[in-house]
Amino acid sequence: MSRIDRNRARKERRASRSGTGISQIGFGPLNNRYPPINPLSEEQVEEIHNASLCLLRDSGIEVMSASVRAQFNREGASVDDDTGIVKVDPEMIIELISRAPREIRLTPRNSDHTVTLGGSQVNFGAVSGPPNVHDRVHGRRAGNFADYKKLISLGQAFNVISVFGNQSVATTDLPVPTRHLDCYEANLTLTDKIFSAIPIGKERVVDAAHMVAIARGISLDELHRSPGLIGNININSPRKLDEAMSDGALALAELGQAVIVTPFTLLGAMTPVTMAAALVQQNAEALLGLSMIQMAFPGSPVIYGGFTSNVDMRSGAPTFGTPENAKANLAGGQMARRYGLPYRTSACNASNSVDVQSTYETQMALWGAVMGHGNLVYHAAGWLEGGLVASFEKFVIDVEVIQHLSEMLKPIDTSVDELAVDAISGVEPGGHFFGAEHTMERYESAFYTPFLSDWQNNENWQAAGAKDATSRATEIWQSVLENFEPPAFDDDRREELSEYVQRRKREIGTREM
Amino acid sequence: MSRIDRNRARKERRASRSGTGISQIGFGPLNNRYPPINPLSEEQVEEIHNASLCLLRDSGIEVMSASVRAQFNREGASVDDDTGIVKVDPEMIIELISRAPREIRLTPRNSDHTVTLGGSQVNFGAVSGPPNVHDRVHGRRAGNFADYKKLISLGQAFNVISVFGNQSVATTDLPVPTRHLDCYEANLTLTDKIFSAIPIGKERVVDAAHMVAIARGISLDELHRSPGLIGNININSPRKLDEAMSDGALALAELGQAVIVTPFTLLGAMTPVTMAAALVQQNAEALLGLSMIQMAFPGSPVIYGGFTSNVDMRSGAPTFGTPENAKANLAGGQMARRYGLPYRTSACNASNSVDVQSTYETQMALWGAVMGHGNLVYHAAGWLEGGLVASFEKFVIDVEVIQHLSEMLKPIDTSVDELAVDAISGVEPGGHFFGAEHTMERYESAFYTPFLSDWQNNENWQAAGAKDATSRATEIWQSVLENFEPPAFDDDRREELSEYVQRRKREIGTREM
Repeated sequence: MSRIDRNRARKERRASRSGTGISQIGFGPLNNRYPPINPLSEEQVEEIHNASLCLLRDSGIEVMSASVRAQFNREGASVDDDTGIVKVDPEMIIELISRAPREIRLTPRNSDHTVTLGGSQVNFGAVSGPPNVHDRVHGRRAGNFADYKKLISLGQAFNVISVFGNQSVATTDLPVPTRHLDCYEANLTLTDKIFSAIPIGKERVVDAAHMVAIARGISLDELHRSPGLIGNININSPRKLDEAMSDGALALAELGQAVIVTPFTLLGAMTPVTMAAALVQQNAEALLGLSMIQMAFPGSPVIYGGFTSNVDMRSGAPTFGTPENAKANLAGGQMARRYGLPYRTSACNASNSVDVQSTYETQMALWGAVMGHGNLVYHAAGWLEGGLVASFEKFVIDVEVIQHLSEMLKPIDTSVDELAVDAISGVEPGGHFFGAEHTMERYESAFYTPFLSDWQNNENWQAAGAKDATSRATEIWQSVLENFEPPAFDDDRREELSEYVQRRKREIGTREM
Repeated sequence: MSRIDRNRARKERRASRSGTGISQIGFGPLNNRYPPINPLSEEQVEEIHNASLCLLRDSGIEVMSASVRAQFNREGASVDDDTGIVKVDPEMIIELISRAPREIRLTPRNSDHTVTLGGSQVNFGAVSGPPNVHDRVHGRRAGNFADYKKLISLGQAFNVISVFGNQSVATTDLPVPTRHLDCYEANLTLTDKIFSAIPIGKERVVDAAHMVAIARGISLDELHRSPGLIGNININSPRKLDEAMSDGALALAELGQAVIVTPFTLLGAMTPVTMAAALVQQNAEALLGLSMIQMAFPGSPVIYGGFTSNVDMRSGAPTFGTPENAKANLAGGQMARRYGLPYRTSACNASNSVDVQSTYETQMALWGAVMGHGNLVYHAAGWLEGGLVASFEKFVIDVEVIQHLSEMLKPIDTSVDELAVDAISGVEPGGHFFGAEHTMERYESAFYTPFLSDWQNNENWQAAGAKDATSRATEIWQSVLENFEPPAFDDDRREELSEYVQRRKREIGTREM
């Protein structure tokens, strides 16, 4: 197949795959032109900033990696190798953080799906991390590779999703040492959007970089200059940075790829029960992790992560989409902006069912994320049950809600044709506008068209089976997956990718026997 | 029973009825201290303002009432008695509107439930107007008085509801000419919050005023000085003001009670399909109605109403909670503030089922209402199916969401005890805060406690019957109604009220035979 033929075939495939059969808004971030909602006054932001710097100076963070401790020591921090505690002065933190760029541009193998993190642009990521998966047809089951591929296919099909986090669902049926290779290969063949490396240790990160470079037909040096990977590490809150996390983060930074540092701060469990304390701790832990990266690789792209929610104090179970979670999403944005850093937040819920609770919880968190000017909203589609389940129906519902919100926040056009005083006058008092010329010229595209909402009258709705929105969501994901066609991909690169995976599996397999 | 005994008995009843068995926030408005979200620039607000004044000057509104036309004529407007069209100059509109107060205080028979409309205070009203009613136990049925009483009892029981609109559900089993008397009597015995007069003609309004005065033990003059009634009239969009509506509105204003003027503007049906045109028309129609009231009764309390949503262009059916509806809720607030008027908006949906769709639609509209600084959010609990149904389960769910939002928008305390740097340092890295002293002292009240959300783990949730949130809502309204006790009410006043109703029924009955 010649290059020209391949290009033609690709174009044809592209044309057909745009037909998901559902009404979508275009790819691209929600540009939130409204000022953020700020629960903290400027003085309060400084209070939290100062308290977190005091915490880092006086009590510090336990850093498990000896090499990271050594580097902190060389740079002038106070390090205790017995306890692992690293204490850092405020001036040093502030200087290190100031090295980070304000905006990050990430280019996947399809440059049409480039993502910019910064300013008022809000990007939405698919669910990542759950050990289990659920849909209404097959029920609840352990995460597996077949479902993994279906979930990322959904994320590819829906335009509002622009980032895949660290595994849409655990692939428990694949061998642990090599499953990252299978997942990356699926990410690069079934999708052409930004995805996350698995930043647990260095090796998985290096594999991700090699594979993305192959898929894009570029070298690792070129990938360094034009990053296309992101990775999220958690601080093991309270105040502990695990070695696999720092290794993964530093490996990404060394390769020039973007790192999110997200403290895992649930009020009442990993932080005190007060919101102010949780924000102090989140801020201190995030700054420590981000400082580590800027110390080793000045100017490398980093993102301030917030994942502050609370727990059910009766059971200790994590809760999401609560008023506290949504408020923390807002406040986290204020802290990130305090340092001029892009902001990652989330839209989660803790319901056991794809029901009304899962909807109001996610939407409450989503409003916090969007009005907090989150630049990257993790888990924005498909998260259920406090993150224990990736849900197909919830994925569909969340996409619909993101589309609603995106449309709601678009500006209003007040040009003369839109004000339409003549059109108003043209209809007699008590009449209607259905047949008016002004209406006829515009009605097909005048309003946002949801794909999930059902507006039939009750009689017709009953006659059509009285399907609620969750039932309709089942039909939608089934239809989207049935019609799914993977994005165009150069055959040579696909082959090279496959060879890389096979080679690495042999290496890892041999080594580990 | 002596006065002292009655007071004691009332206090005891009050103490017991606070036990709805569910976790509630206190009575009172959501004080939204955040700036509104403004989809229109200041220039765009002026463009809509100017376009609507041009519409009123050049094309006018059809006013069905000859007496209202005559008054407009006397005041200098251009009136055509053949067509009924009234055209008013911008200067006249602006002068008339400027007479209205910026803030309105409404006192019900229990002054603890006083409502202030204005500024950043958001009050929530129960569903009003549906012809049908639905719950999961008894299904969908025509509105009736028994369900009417249950719905207002729910509204009384839930603290976030502070206003009852014009009938929670139609009482189709009561005689039309006197059903307003039964409804008012129920409002005044089963609830002690602000409710709406039925401003369809003068007579129903006068009855409401007499009955509220009796319930409060005051004269009509005193009621005039301390208003306790509200009434909503719709403009019959496009551009038509029915006589029963102007009669009802003017009767309320004459008695010193508050009037909302709400154009019924669905894009594509009653207005052009463009948002700008709908806002122009809404604004023109609202200003005309409000001007009429200020012309007749200068300085009387009025509220700017917005009810702009769109229709499904395939069927013509009204839709709610759409991006257009939510955006209009925001923009309507800008127009009301342009004139320094309190703002009434809504939180509706168009779903056939108490499902995920009804939840995301209502919540989208609710965010528009709250961030548009709606002072009174109509239909905020219990609205379903585009307003054709009042739903018991939806009522419960909506209250939960309003509570969530109220808590989310509360400020963050950053006092030293809340920042709690010592408490953070007091737990070792990687430890937890469950048993910490700082936690133990605060955990019981640290977080908002929802009454509807279920955070059990999946195993326990399954074992408990795997009830989704809508099923749990059924149990909640059943329990709230079972435990419901009407608010304390002076026996003499109750008797006087009953006598008034009987007398009026005899009068109306005799007259109409």
